[in-house]
Amino acid sequence: MKIVVDAMGGDFAPVETVKGAVDAVKELGIEVILVGDEDKVNDELARYSTGKLPVSVIHAPEVIEMGEPPAVALRKKKNSSIVVGTKLVKEGVGDAIVSAGNTGAAMGSALLGFGRIKGIHRPAIASVIPTVKGKSLILDVGANAECDPQNLLQFAVMGSIYSKKILGVEKPKVGLLNIGEEETKGNPIYLEAYRLIKDTDLNFIGNIEGRDITAGIADVIVCDGFVGNVVLKFGEGLAKDLMSMIKEELKKNVFVKLGAAIILSHAKGLRKKIDYSEYGGAPLLGINGVCIICHGTSQAKAIKNAIRAARECVEMDVVNSIKRSIGEKSIGDGSVANG
Amino acid sequence: MKIVVDAMGGDFAPVETVKGAVDAVKELGIEVILVGDEDKVNDELARYSTGKLPVSVIHAPEVIEMGEPPAVALRKKKNSSIVVGTKLVKEGVGDAIVSAGNTGAAMGSALLGFGRIKGIHRPAIASVIPTVKGKSLILDVGANAECDPQNLLQFAVMGSIYSKKILGVEKPKVGLLNIGEEETKGNPIYLEAYRLIKDTDLNFIGNIEGRDITAGIADVIVCDGFVGNVVLKFGEGLAKDLMSMIKEELKKNVFVKLGAAIILSHAKGLRKKIDYSEYGGAPLLGINGVCIICHGTSQAKAIKNAIRAARECVEMDVVNSIKRSIGEKSIGDGSVANG
Repeated sequence: MKIVVDAMGGDFAPVETVKGAVDAVKELGIEVILVGDEDKVNDELARYSTGKLPVSVIHAPEVIEMGEPPAVALRKKKNSSIVVGTKLVKEGVGDAIVSAGNTGAAMGSALLGFGRIKGIHRPAIASVIPTVKGKSLILDVGANAECDPQNLLQFAVMGSIYSKKILGVEKPKVGLLNIGEEETKGNPIYLEAYRLIKDTDLNFIGNIEGRDITAGIADVIVCDGFVGNVVLKFGEGLAKDLMSMIKEELKKNVFVKLGAAIILSHAKGLRKKIDYSEYGGAPLLGINGVCIICHGTSQAKAIKNAIRAARECVEMDVVNSIKRSIGEKSIGDGSVANG
Repeated sequence: MKIVVDAMGGDFAPVETVKGAVDAVKELGIEVILVGDEDKVNDELARYSTGKLPVSVIHAPEVIEMGEPPAVALRKKKNSSIVVGTKLVKEGVGDAIVSAGNTGAAMGSALLGFGRIKGIHRPAIASVIPTVKGKSLILDVGANAECDPQNLLQFAVMGSIYSKKILGVEKPKVGLLNIGEEETKGNPIYLEAYRLIKDTDLNFIGNIEGRDITAGIADVIVCDGFVGNVVLKFGEGLAKDLMSMIKEELKKNVFVKLGAAIILSHAKGLRKKIDYSEYGGAPLLGINGVCIICHGTSQAKAIKNAIRAARECVEMDVVNSIKRSIGEKSIGDGSVANG
């Protein structure tokens, strides 16, 4: 198996992407193809002793920058690392792609390159989120700014499969993110989605509220991409800003400084728990291939864990499981034209 | 000025509601009318020396419980504390109402009792949220599970007035909560709302993302009640769960325990900053009267601060400011029939 890594994607590429790839090769024994500016990537690779390791480089001279409008960039930059990388997977040279670059471009490239799974109206980005009980999956976190009830139903199905196959939850509890627990809460789209999901054989626990997310009462949290995106970024911002507020406080008081130093040197379990980079990127579910999207600020550890997630998606055959599930249950019938 | 307090509303009523009211009378010199079961309220009052203080009790034998469907409850329980309290304000006996009870019932009661301000299509619940820079206002946080662009525009106007008059921000920066910063981001409702808000003389800083909320880059954060409700509850849950994760960690390690004890005894500034009860409840904006809604779990301090916020809303004439603003700018014209 070969995992293709967009070596030029991300705020710290190619330094961290190459380091993460090398770590994946060395620690996890995964074969990696790095796609990007050959000279730059090789310069980075030269820092490590990769002599006989299964890591190769394929040249792609262009880069889609973080701020570029994805649609335009994908059309213009046919030789960008993300487009070339996706093509390699499409042609069977690689088995999955990992990118920390422009999310819209990675998504668009995967969608154009692999296509949607038949019956899936809209792919979704699923993200692992740390909870008190461990971790949950939330989707969609940004692929769709608008969703209809059928989309939400399909997210529930795809999320359950990912939770089971990759996160190892035997019978994932599915919650619909809403503004109240009662079946009658929410807007018409969520009311109908509730009805649709309830009718499946998924382990649906009903509506959950914002406060239930980190409590971990649902293994799979279903929402539209607008809500999911705001929640995910809010959580990141809150965690970051809370740290900066604590640091600000530290400056003021030597006792607090001492307390914090003691905590930080001992509470490694907690730090690991709330560290997003442990969770290995966000899969784009619903496409006919494996694409793992990483945070733009990903460091080597996040890249390595994303490569691991990509391998697991291929090994556990997530794509075909979704195909079967959508086919068997005819989930997607009766929907409005939507994709 | 007299502030009416729903003495029976909230998880810790009437103990905490009465205590908060007494504190408001004593510390802030505000005249308070407590509405609720006379015997129970007087029993609580008897704990304090309120002899010549301006605090009175008006009997209301019924209570709308937290879980009751608001519409039904309001129809059935005409003698509930929230309905009687609202009526007192409507009749001019009191100037504003504060309730920590069933949010839907408080909102419904205020809407029925006071009516909407002419030109406002949908009232919104605005909540103060702590940020790195101090505090911001976010609205709507749950009054409307669906919004159109006109609603979002009006939230921007009302939020700016509240931020200026009550939170003391001279020229409040208004941000539209979206899934990207660019003008082209979001769904059709947010795209149109962006255009509408941009056309006003508000200090509009454009779209903001989830991660910008606690960074405090906007003084007024505008969103629909679905997104706002999920965000607010997620923030509460995250803060709570982070604490429980820390406590869990504490059990494991004596050094961490020591560090935490030191921090907690010294970082009072931080604790105060992230303590929701400092911020005095959430005003229901857009109605023809003053109604402050408190969290169901409010303790005395939150009630006291909500009473203070109610007084300020009356003193600063927030309702008439909104009336003038909506009238002057004809904000609300051209909208679809919506309320």
